[in-house]
Amino acid sequence: MRTTVGIIGAGPAGLLLARLLHRAGIDSVVLESRDRAYVEQRQRAGILEQGTADVLRAVGAGERMDREGLRHDGIELRFDGRRHRVDFPGLTGGRSVTVYAQTEVCKDLVALQVEEGGPLLFEAEALAVEGAEGDRPRVPFRHRGVEQVLECDYVVGCDGFWGVARGAFPAEPSRVFERSYPYAWLGILADVAPSHGELVYARHDRGFALLSMRSPTVSRLYLQVPEGTDAARWGDEEIWDELERRLETADGWRLERGPVTQKSVTPMRSFVHEPMRHGRLFLAGDAAHIVPPTGAKGLNLAVGDVVTLARALVHRRDTGSEELLDAYSATCLRRIWQAERFSYDMTTLLHRAPGATAFDARLQRARLERIASSHAAGTDLAEAYTGFPLQ
Amino acid sequence: MRTTVGIIGAGPAGLLLARLLHRAGIDSVVLESRDRAYVEQRQRAGILEQGTADVLRAVGAGERMDREGLRHDGIELRFDGRRHRVDFPGLTGGRSVTVYAQTEVCKDLVALQVEEGGPLLFEAEALAVEGAEGDRPRVPFRHRGVEQVLECDYVVGCDGFWGVARGAFPAEPSRVFERSYPYAWLGILADVAPSHGELVYARHDRGFALLSMRSPTVSRLYLQVPEGTDAARWGDEEIWDELERRLETADGWRLERGPVTQKSVTPMRSFVHEPMRHGRLFLAGDAAHIVPPTGAKGLNLAVGDVVTLARALVHRRDTGSEELLDAYSATCLRRIWQAERFSYDMTTLLHRAPGATAFDARLQRARLERIASSHAAGTDLAEAYTGFPLQ
Repeated sequence: MRTTVGIIGAGPAGLLLARLLHRAGIDSVVLESRDRAYVEQRQRAGILEQGTADVLRAVGAGERMDREGLRHDGIELRFDGRRHRVDFPGLTGGRSVTVYAQTEVCKDLVALQVEEGGPLLFEAEALAVEGAEGDRPRVPFRHRGVEQVLECDYVVGCDGFWGVARGAFPAEPSRVFERSYPYAWLGILADVAPSHGELVYARHDRGFALLSMRSPTVSRLYLQVPEGTDAARWGDEEIWDELERRLETADGWRLERGPVTQKSVTPMRSFVHEPMRHGRLFLAGDAAHIVPPTGAKGLNLAVGDVVTLARALVHRRDTGSEELLDAYSATCLRRIWQAERFSYDMTTLLHRAPGATAFDARLQRARLERIASSHAAGTDLAEAYTGFPLQ
Repeated sequence: MRTTVGIIGAGPAGLLLARLLHRAGIDSVVLESRDRAYVEQRQRAGILEQGTADVLRAVGAGERMDREGLRHDGIELRFDGRRHRVDFPGLTGGRSVTVYAQTEVCKDLVALQVEEGGPLLFEAEALAVEGAEGDRPRVPFRHRGVEQVLECDYVVGCDGFWGVARGAFPAEPSRVFERSYPYAWLGILADVAPSHGELVYARHDRGFALLSMRSPTVSRLYLQVPEGTDAARWGDEEIWDELERRLETADGWRLERGPVTQKSVTPMRSFVHEPMRHGRLFLAGDAAHIVPPTGAKGLNLAVGDVVTLARALVHRRDTGSEELLDAYSATCLRRIWQAERFSYDMTTLLHRAPGATAFDARLQRARLERIASSHAAGTDLAEAYTGFPLQ
């Protein structure tokens, strides 16, 4: 098999990259190790920055998002029984975010790809990336039991933290930056209308809680739990009780309960691989960087990567210049490190670390009070949450 | 001896409080355990927030400050060989700071007090605070070898972290919040014109450095060193060499050297005692809170405390109402915790912690880049540096 751009992984990064290239007239093949149902059902992020929503619209993948997604103009911070709303458009000159689940984004992109894009092979496991240093990189893969080879001009690893693409980078000059957190998120999906119209981030002495939503009838809620927690050990009512405690307000706001349809634990990690390019192999999305979910940045960073990369590949084809491809890693890493910083800050602002002192708790409160009382600090948060510009 | 307000400690907090009360017609006695020369020569802070300078002017202690002090409209941040100026008036709507050493503030206030204020007893060591719960608190003290008692309506402990006032607070409900840092500052005074017109805060892989000044002919410079460092173990040229490395820029800026006239090590600590009032005993300044020096907040917080307290004491005399005295602790603590937060953030932004990872270093760089590129983040810093409003 032969293509211009071989894409490993059909998550949002791989699917959107294929779509961007298709519209620019560059052919690609997407290899995805899982089956279609898995790709379309995996629960992940659900907050699209304004720039992400704009890109999806621009590639013709915005129709259902605009019909079913929820535009959110702010988030609420809760601490000490108080509520503070961060007003996104007011602080950023009109920016907002869209609540629309990553699974839905993937469904929309898969449908478009199948209908009018290049090959998208499910159950096609990439085994390696070979020859990235030369002109003709190759990706040996196994498709439904049969070994084949994909020959490409460029290979893009959109295959996540555990994928093979990063493994093809040489030890030098690769550098890995990592941080783990001594807590995780216990998340539930519940068939009940969200108890608040916008996301609620709560800092509580018992730990962090987040009220989110997938739609006007489906709530998504999270509790900070110790690292390594088994979701099955938490009963549904126990989860609701704990959410109620942590989300409590002084003004008598109430949390509505409903049937829990899914329960899972998400670990928290920060990770960056530098650089994001080796010869004709590029990394995009989770293959190159992970953020803890508190800042809702993971999906949006993946979109940023492939927008930058697609532009560089088109520039290469149109002008013969490698300039933008050469700049790819540095361009993305500037945005990525800002998102890493923001995700780290949101995480440490709101979570209770084991061994945290009374001084640490007072610092958290002082930070929250600063955000609540200072236009500058509120703007700093709102700009980061609604997204740094795509370049 | 009998007075309305007994003040323990003739640092800036105690001296300014005596001055504020004197101008309001409330009599006080100041007890200071050291002699006058010590009080007037102890090297401490040197950055006055705009609000602090305004208060000194308002009490008639601004004349020499306005003549000899240096108005600074910004600071410079250095990292990765780059320079970024934080423009205070531009970001805050006109605010600035004044470089004028704490020792000079103390000299000016001592002179005023001796000339026209109430008793200021040097070498008068307060031994305890008794009867704070009742109407007539007492301060037994030893003045040049003779034991006496100061009887007061109110006692104010401006006697620093090691003073006796805090010891008179009951264990309940007192709470102490603390953090120590695994590094210190090696500071020098040098007879050489400052090599830059404004303060320079440098983040370097070898550790933090600060270029500051006392006057147009006297430089004050600091190096991050390990906790417990003996200043005598650093030779003068070794200090200049290290300063040069850490302050280095890509554009060839040069550090001028000169004779080192003083050398000392400052430990770094965060500390808050809550509440700041017990009956008729009040704490102000370092007796209640310490910040690491990176944010230049210590002196300014002390000024904030005594402005709030003087206003409350005047209100009590004029109206009989305890309302502002009751609010003293909470009013100050809001401002104090913002300064604690800012001082912690400036410290961790710029210092290299032992055991810091490559991820931590990248986070620092991302924070500095954010400050350098975002109006909101720059404003957040500039507002905090030039000072939160006095209440």
